Amino acid sequence: MKRPLILVTNDDGITAPGIRALVSVARQIGEVVVVAPDSPQSGMGHAITINSPIRLHPNHTALEGVEAYECSGTPVDCVKLAKHVILKDRVPDICLSGINHGSNASINIIYSGTLSAAMEASLEGIPSIGFSLLDYAYDANFEHCLPFVKQLTEYVLEHGLAEGSLLNVNIPAVEHNEINGMRVCRQADARWVEEFTEAEDPRGQKYYWLTGKFVNEDLGDDTDIWALENNYISVVPSMHDLTNYQALKVLKGIEKL
Amino acid sequence: MKRPLILVTNDDGITAPGIRALVSVARQIGEVVVVAPDSPQSGMGHAITINSPIRLHPNHTALEGVEAYECSGTPVDCVKLAKHVILKDRVPDICLSGINHGSNASINIIYSGTLSAAMEASLEGIPSIGFSLLDYAYDANFEHCLPFVKQLTEYVLEHGLAEGSLLNVNIPAVEHNEINGMRVCRQADARWVEEFTEAEDPRGQKYYWLTGKFVNEDLGDDTDIWALENNYISVVPSMHDLTNYQALKVLKGIEKL
Repeated sequence: MKRPLILVTNDDGITAPGIRALVSVARQIGEVVVVAPDSPQSGMGHAITINSPIRLHPNHTALEGVEAYECSGTPVDCVKLAKHVILKDRVPDICLSGINHGSNASINIIYSGTLSAAMEASLEGIPSIGFSLLDYAYDANFEHCLPFVKQLTEYVLEHGLAEGSLLNVNIPAVEHNEINGMRVCRQADARWVEEFTEAEDPRGQKYYWLTGKFVNEDLGDDTDIWALENNYISVVPSMHDLTNYQALKVLKGIEKL
Repeated sequence: MKRPLILVTNDDGITAPGIRALVSVARQIGEVVVVAPDSPQSGMGHAITINSPIRLHPNHTALEGVEAYECSGTPVDCVKLAKHVILKDRVPDICLSGINHGSNASINIIYSGTLSAAMEASLEGIPSIGFSLLDYAYDANFEHCLPFVKQLTEYVLEHGLAEGSLLNVNIPAVEHNEINGMRVCRQADARWVEEFTEAEDPRGQKYYWLTGKFVNEDLGDDTDIWALENNYISVVPSMHDLTNYQALKVLKGIEKL
C-alpha cells in the first residue's frame, strides 16, 4: 500500500518543539511535508497575507528526515502555499497542525492559527486535525500526546471525516497514565474576559498590551472544557459553516421590512 | 427615550469611505463611538495582537461629530479595546462593522476582519451587524446602502438577536431601484481557489503574492450568493459555535479506540 502524504503545519513556528513532536509521529505513518511559519504566529486566527508579498524557503534541516519549508506568512498562508506552490498535484491525504503549545479548546478555536490552518486544509477538501497541549511552556512535555496523535491520525486516514470537517483535539498536560481516554464533544460556550495592561514606552508614549482571563459558564458535561477538566482528551468535530440555522428561521420576518 | 449607544468599527481603516457612510447612518439613530484600525486590516480574520503592544489614540476629527479612536491593532483588537479601555461601564446597545469595501459573503466571513470584529462584539454579548458592499473600489458608491443599513440597525435595536449571534449583511453594487429586497439566508458553501503570483524583488529574491478565484458550486437558492446574484441584500445570521453536531454523533466511536 502507498504510504499516505501528510502535510504538517503549526502556528508556533517551524522551530517549536510541538511541531517536532508531531513530525516524529507523522513520519511513522507516511511521507511528510512540512510548511510552517518562520516565526511564531499565535493568535493570528484565519488571517491571510494579501497586502504584502510572502517569502517561502526550503529548510530541510529544520526537522529530521522530512521535506520542510518555512514561510513568512500566517498559518493559513502556509496551507495555501503548500497546496498551490509546493505540492501542486500531490494531494495530501491528511493535514496535521500543531502540536500547539497551549489550549485551543472552546472559543480559542477562532483565535488560533493552528486551528485556522487545519480549517483551511479542510476547505481544500483535505481531512485535517489540529492538536494542542494544555501547556504554554516552550519546553512542554509532549511525550504522552504521541500515542493519541498516532491513533487519531490513523483513524482519520482510515475512515475520513465528513466533508468540510476538521477535528479540534486538545490534550491535558498530565502524565500518560492519568489520561482517562478520549471524549467526542461540543465546543464549550466559554470566552475570554479581557484586560489591558497600560504602560509607557521609553519615549513616554502610552501603549496597551492584551491580557485576559478565560471564563467558562457553560456547565454541560458534553463540552471540551468538561472533558479536559476531567483528564479526557477532547475531540471536537468542527466546521466552517457559521450559519445560525435556528436564528435564520426567527429572522425570516426581516424580508418583509 | 435614551438614545442607543452604537459602537462602530471596520477593517478598511478609520479613513475609509465605507466607515464614513456607516457613521452617517449611525449618527441618525444614536450616540456613536468609533474605534477603528489606523491602517487597512483586510483579511486579518479573527487575529489578535498578543506578542506586541497596541497603540490607541483619540482622533475625534476623523469622522464628523463623533467620538473616534484609531488603533494600531486588528479589528478584533479594536472591539476589545473599545469595550475594556474606552467604554468600560458604558455598554453598547449594538456594534456595527463596515461598510466593507468588497464582499464578505459565504466563506469570506472567516477571512474578514470586518465580520470578525462583529463576531467579537457578539462574544461580548453585544448584538452586532457586519455590512459589506460588493465593490472593492476605494471610491465605491455607498448611497443605496444607507436606507437598508438604517432599517436593519433599527430592527436589531428593537428586537435584539439570539445570544451570541451576529448578522452578516452583503449588499449588491447596483442602483437603489434595482435592489429586490432582503433575503435571510445561509452561508453558501463556496471557497477560494488560490493561485500565487511568483516574482523577484529588486535584490533578486523570490516572493509570492496571494491571488485567487472565488468558486461557488453550491447551487441552493437559499444561500447568500444566490441572493446577491439576484440583486437581493443577503442577511446571514452567524455564530461562533463551530461544532459540527452531525459529525459529532458519527464520531462517537472514537471514544472506544
